[in-house]
Amino acid sequence: MKKINTSPISGTQELLPSLQNEFDRLKNGLLATFHAHGFQSIETPVIERSEILLAKAGGDTEKQIYKVVKTAEDTSSADQALRFDHTVPLARYVVQHESDLTFPFKVTQIGRNFRGERPQKGRFREFYQCDVDVIGRGSLPIYYDAEVIATLADAMEVLPLKQVIIRVSNRKILAGLLEDLGLSDKLTEISGVIDHAEKVAPEKTSAALAEIITDEQKVKQVEGLMRIRGSRQDAIADLRSKFNARQGSMLEEGINELDEVLRLLEERGIKNAVADLLIIRGLDYYTGTVFETIAPDYLEFGSICSGGRYENLASNYTEQKFPGVGGSIGLTRLFAAFRESNLVDPGEAKPIDVCLIPVSNNEIVACEALAKKLRKEGQKVDVVGSDRKVGDKMTYAGKIARFAAVIGDDEVKNGKYELKNLGSGEKTERSF
Amino acid sequence: MKKINTSPISGTQELLPSLQNEFDRLKNGLLATFHAHGFQSIETPVIERSEILLAKAGGDTEKQIYKVVKTAEDTSSADQALRFDHTVPLARYVVQHESDLTFPFKVTQIGRNFRGERPQKGRFREFYQCDVDVIGRGSLPIYYDAEVIATLADAMEVLPLKQVIIRVSNRKILAGLLEDLGLSDKLTEISGVIDHAEKVAPEKTSAALAEIITDEQKVKQVEGLMRIRGSRQDAIADLRSKFNARQGSMLEEGINELDEVLRLLEERGIKNAVADLLIIRGLDYYTGTVFETIAPDYLEFGSICSGGRYENLASNYTEQKFPGVGGSIGLTRLFAAFRESNLVDPGEAKPIDVCLIPVSNNEIVACEALAKKLRKEGQKVDVVGSDRKVGDKMTYAGKIARFAAVIGDDEVKNGKYELKNLGSGEKTERSF
Repeated sequence: MKKINTSPISGTQELLPSLQNEFDRLKNGLLATFHAHGFQSIETPVIERSEILLAKAGGDTEKQIYKVVKTAEDTSSADQALRFDHTVPLARYVVQHESDLTFPFKVTQIGRNFRGERPQKGRFREFYQCDVDVIGRGSLPIYYDAEVIATLADAMEVLPLKQVIIRVSNRKILAGLLEDLGLSDKLTEISGVIDHAEKVAPEKTSAALAEIITDEQKVKQVEGLMRIRGSRQDAIADLRSKFNARQGSMLEEGINELDEVLRLLEERGIKNAVADLLIIRGLDYYTGTVFETIAPDYLEFGSICSGGRYENLASNYTEQKFPGVGGSIGLTRLFAAFRESNLVDPGEAKPIDVCLIPVSNNEIVACEALAKKLRKEGQKVDVVGSDRKVGDKMTYAGKIARFAAVIGDDEVKNGKYELKNLGSGEKTERSF
Repeated sequence: MKKINTSPISGTQELLPSLQNEFDRLKNGLLATFHAHGFQSIETPVIERSEILLAKAGGDTEKQIYKVVKTAEDTSSADQALRFDHTVPLARYVVQHESDLTFPFKVTQIGRNFRGERPQKGRFREFYQCDVDVIGRGSLPIYYDAEVIATLADAMEVLPLKQVIIRVSNRKILAGLLEDLGLSDKLTEISGVIDHAEKVAPEKTSAALAEIITDEQKVKQVEGLMRIRGSRQDAIADLRSKFNARQGSMLEEGINELDEVLRLLEERGIKNAVADLLIIRGLDYYTGTVFETIAPDYLEFGSICSGGRYENLASNYTEQKFPGVGGSIGLTRLFAAFRESNLVDPGEAKPIDVCLIPVSNNEIVACEALAKKLRKEGQKVDVVGSDRKVGDKMTYAGKIARFAAVIGDDEVKNGKYELKNLGSGEKTERSF
């Protein structure tokens, strides 16, 4: 027989059942929180028209799009490719179904996306993203910026992290400052430097800014902005005192919006959100609120969850304006990081609640009747119908289940059995 | 602006939120039943090595495999393609992870598969399959044939069908009869004719059989076999009296296995399984038990759920023997059929439980506090933070939620509010 490589393609996630169970528990926990906050699930096809994906993509993303080759039987005219995120298909979905949707449209998408990257630590070719978005038609109140962050803050409590800090900023603040400094044309360049500031030495950032801005006074102003972080009260006071925003200016608008988002979060009792003007987010399309999340004990994980406000979701497909705000958790990448840091214990995550072990085939009927009862109570029950010895069946149970019971002649006769806790070894008597 | 086609690719499923909610309810219901029966979830990558997929595929399937074109950044050497079912990746998974798995391995896979077919009614390019399988190592008791059917019988109660009938047969019976008739070399051909018998006029089937078999007496024997259906007692008695199986023959083995599977189902109280020797299943790899399921009121749906026993799951990748038995529900195809027959009511399936409507921004804090309480009780709650009038917010609520409450000054002061049932219009007073 020709030897075939049976490993999954590198850069994809394939888990043993106990780890899959743990991954699913996290994924379902996130989804349940999103639903509890009134977000509705949708699911777009994994295969999209290439022109839809390429209308938005650019640079690295375009190089990473997996194209799909049509088969002899697939006679459609469109070029096809695999989606690389949820945002582009969402934009298409909103334009396509606009007349049937209710706005503001609170939507969640949890599913697999695909990027043809070179696999490396933290980079996957096939990965789960867990997204929430709120899409307005024409306009969308800033209330929803806070709602998205609050929802994600709640959701992150499912993750095995003791503490996370949500760092919030607003892009209008930097854009407004640069406008006031006559540097609007340098916004993208300067944003890039700030976005990378935490990854390089401070001198490097200063040097990079000096090269772009030239005027030393103005460099100091930008550096002053970058250093502002802390509670709402302190940070907003700092911003207002240091930068003297003109009434009606973009700078003032940005400061007010940041103040408002943080205030709404405070009112809702969310204590782990802070202002942090270092946060910019790499993607071009954010226009207002932006946020990232760190786990102080695991800074190496990078951002746990991030997102922001975009002025126009679907500008590539329609003239109509759909402002939105959203955020995303990259669960496949995070799960790999959790495993590496021993934050996931597959030994604990037994997928089965109870294994019922018939001593012989004579007890199968009794086991099935008991299984039916336990299943109705919500338990995951396996009747071990294999033709092995009882000891072997017990070994099998020990690997997949939390409890087991051996059911023989006597148990059936007396209507009682011993339920064994396979972790502690403790036994309790139960009735059929 | 260039006009871009925003419809999803044909042959894929894209649902509005209320229908998605209904689809997910069915999918989650099936999964919960599979878990309750002790099946463990796994998830293999959507993208597989082509050589894995093509090792098993043949004929139509090979023509329908979507290949994936690697990108400039994806420098792996393997050709890649999208999986077309769950069985082939499961075979690879079992071989790859054998030493970490527990056998018999009870496994469920619910996910999307891909076939580059010409889209038509009932044919999708991207579709959900909901599979259960039990894989043995070396051997697997017939108990698990019944367990798979019983699990699927339980699961189908989630579907909006009043009645389903599970038609069970065993391939060894036909194979054994043909062996006894000296017609073993005609097994595949004759199976094909029987598999199509329900789709053509009886004379056509007779003619086709006569052409293959020539001996009129033997044609009559095969036709006699095809006509056997009914309760276990009747069908098994018929088989035993009409075909006089030699002891130790394949025919006897097949009859005994069918008897045993149906007896195990009877013992478990499953009343809708019958013997039906017309059932053959198209796929080559089934070797024993086979089953299909019909909804008597909706024969046009075809088989609701089907599967069978295969002697060797992974013969393409290993010399080791992994016998298995499994079954599958094609949920995307079925859901489309349910919708067409008005068995799904999207109007009923409101994804949100309660919309809380603040009269002004002053009541947002109170709404959020109430939302928090209701979410803890397991409700899906949306606080309508849009800047529209209360009447507009009520219209919004009517589209997505089952209940709504308007929260104004008075409600906050008195600590009481009216919860309106948006279906019946009935109002009940509640406390914050």
